[in-house]
Parts: sequence; C-alpha cells; structure tokens
Amino acid sequence: MASIFTKIINGDIPSHKVYEDENYYAFLDISPVQKGHTLLIPKVEVDDMFDLEDELLAGLYVVAKKISKAIKKEFPCNRVGHAVIGLEVPHAHMHLIPISSMHDMNFANKLNLSQEELAEIAERIRVHL
Amino acid sequence: MASIFTKIINGDIPSHKVYEDENYYAFLDISPVQKGHTLLIPKVEVDDMFDLEDELLAGLYVVAKKISKAIKKEFPCNRVGHAVIGLEVPHAHMHLIPISSMHDMNFANKLNLSQEELAEIAERIRVHL
Repeated sequence: MASIFTKIINGDIPSHKVYEDENYYAFLDISPVQKGHTLLIPKVEVDDMFDLEDELLAGLYVVAKKISKAIKKEFPCNRVGHAVIGLEVPHAHMHLIPISSMHDMNFANKLNLSQEELAEIAERIRVHL
Repeated sequence: MASIFTKIINGDIPSHKVYEDENYYAFLDISPVQKGHTLLIPKVEVDDMFDLEDELLAGLYVVAKKISKAIKKEFPCNRVGHAVIGLEVPHAHMHLIPISSMHDMNFANKLNLSQEELAEIAERIRVHL
C-alpha cells in the first residue's frame, strides 16, 4: 500500500508543497515545531533513509541545503537544524527546522497553525526556490 | 582558534575514532544518548553544515550511511536516526544514533560510559568499516 507520503506526492492527499523535482518532494509539516518546519522526502518509498542508493541519498542532502537557505531567508534563525528519525511514517523523511536554540527543535512542542497560515508560509519559502 | 573538533581531528584532544578519510572524521560522542552514538564531521571547519559546498555535503551523507550500517551491525536497532543541530560547538556535526523508538533519540537522556566502554564500542564499530 502507498505510504501517506506517496499519496501526498501523487496529490491524493493535499499538502503545502515547498519544492519538487524528479527525485524529491518537500512540504510543510502539518504539526510544525517552528514556522517553516518542512519535510523533505525522496519520491522512492524507502522506510530507512540509509536504504537509499548513494546517489539519491547524496542528492537529497544538496536539495535540503537549497530548501534550508530558502527557509532561513523568511524565518530568521541561527541555522536550519535537520533530523531523520522517522519511526511514525514508513517513508524516509528529513525534518528541516529553523532554530536558534536546542529548545527550538523540541518535537514535543507543536504549533497549532491554520491551513491559511501554512499556505502563506509555503508560499513565502517557495518564492526563493 | 581551532574548534574542539579540529583539535580532535589533529589528535591534540583524544577521541574514540570510528572512521577517517581525506574529508571526514567520525568519533564517539562522549555523552552518548545510546551506545554507538557517533559524531560525523567534515574536516573543514564550518559552523553551519549547509555552508559546506555541495560536493562535500553530499559526500558526508554517503559516509554517514556507511557508518550507520556499521553501527547497526553491532547495536541492534530499528534504524540509525541522525540529526544536525549543532549550537553547542561551532563545527558542524551529524549525530548518528541507533534507535528503536522516538524516545531513544532524546538528548536529555545521557549514558554515563567509561573510557574503557567507549573504546570497546568504537572498536566494535570500526571492524565493519
């Protein structure tokens, strides 16, 4: 069965898309810990990021850099922290989160943003990509 | 002034080395959250990982995969979670942590391991690299 993220890539489930190319797709986390919190995923459905072949894995990190620079332009921060944990959805995903302190990356602290707010945030990031 | 990690690379500060090549260095975190918790760093001293040039950034992720496979062989886990946060040391570093639940990657839970235990863990990972 297709993962929820594959359904998002295919457009069967709506998302606030930030970036897309042949191999990767990025969209806003709907339970963000910071404004601008983005998920970057490979289109190929692997559970463990490290099961990606080297070329796709390497390319994902370069795309992550590109998106992070865009996030940083709109959401002032010390840097864009990133993490791959991924036990909740069996489709590897990298969290990109603008942070200025360790606390900013605490996954227990979720923001409650409306669809309108998320749409606006995605648009602000997209203009830099 | 050289970062603490540059001093580690240069051997001015001892570390439990796991891997080294021309561009990257990996060693055990001395305050691990799990046994096998490793730090992977570029030898070039940048504060923000995303300030690395694309080729070095991409290459780091491929090395991370290689080390993670080695960690997983010795420390059974669902996967090797990885994160770049890095506000405490101004030399970009990726945490590689064997996890089976979200809780396993909680940076508030540090293990207290002796130098002997760390040396043994590093050796166990190194044999696979």
